[in-house]
Amino acid sequence: MTPGAHQCSIESAVDVIGDRWSLLILRNAFRGVRRFSEIQDDLGIAKNLLASRLRRLVAVGVLSKVPYQTSPLRYEYRLTPMGADLSATLIALMRWGDHWYAHDDPPTVLVHDACSTPLELATRCPQCDVVVTPGHIRSRNHS
Amino acid sequence: MTPGAHQCSIESAVDVIGDRWSLLILRNAFRGVRRFSEIQDDLGIAKNLLASRLRRLVAVGVLSKVPYQTSPLRYEYRLTPMGADLSATLIALMRWGDHWYAHDDPPTVLVHDACSTPLELATRCPQCDVVVTPGHIRSRNHS
Repeated sequence: MTPGAHQCSIESAVDVIGDRWSLLILRNAFRGVRRFSEIQDDLGIAKNLLASRLRRLVAVGVLSKVPYQTSPLRYEYRLTPMGADLSATLIALMRWGDHWYAHDDPPTVLVHDACSTPLELATRCPQCDVVVTPGHIRSRNHS
Repeated sequence: MTPGAHQCSIESAVDVIGDRWSLLILRNAFRGVRRFSEIQDDLGIAKNLLASRLRRLVAVGVLSKVPYQTSPLRYEYRLTPMGADLSATLIALMRWGDHWYAHDDPPTVLVHDACSTPLELATRCPQCDVVVTPGHIRSRNHS
């Protein structure tokens, strides 16, 4: 049996990114903060903790370690396609934080590059072509 | 200065829900698993850990402790509006876990109650009325 095949997908996801530092490191990767010393400065995280989190995020496949200069050899940590696919999760977290914690204007807004309009995150039914609110979401277990 | 006013909203959100147990407790609340012993059985979490996580989730305002019987007095933990508003985050995590970890069919699918079609989560521009892919998302800092 493959791990996760019979496990809730939220649980699989949480096993990978469900700690504070990992989520903040991934947020930084989306913002273009990708080098060890930059991440360390931005987060104020201890070096050994940062190193272990980065190793783990590379091992699970959401970041890749790529050289950006050769003398001395230096690496940066880039989002893989698997990591970039976490954008909806991070956008959802940001919108939630904006709504419940940003008392004035939200500090950072995600906008559409074409028109600079702040983006919305919507749960949609592709069949009915409507936005579905939480009260109309049902959970179906696969049997 | 109010806490969070000048803090990244993802960071505020992660401070509240960025640990494995809290996310799994919230997932259970969405699934209707709301009583101490049911949550404990489902997660296999130590009693003292579960009690401290529940206290914290009530204190930050995402769960409320509500009596469901009076003799003996027993409580359940229900999502507040602030907690229910985390649905997009949990849907995003579930979709990501489905995509990258569920090797066969995803174990649980979220569907539209009206037609049972699996739901999609979309980043949309309300101005242009289009779905916006990660490459067309820009971050704007509030000044």
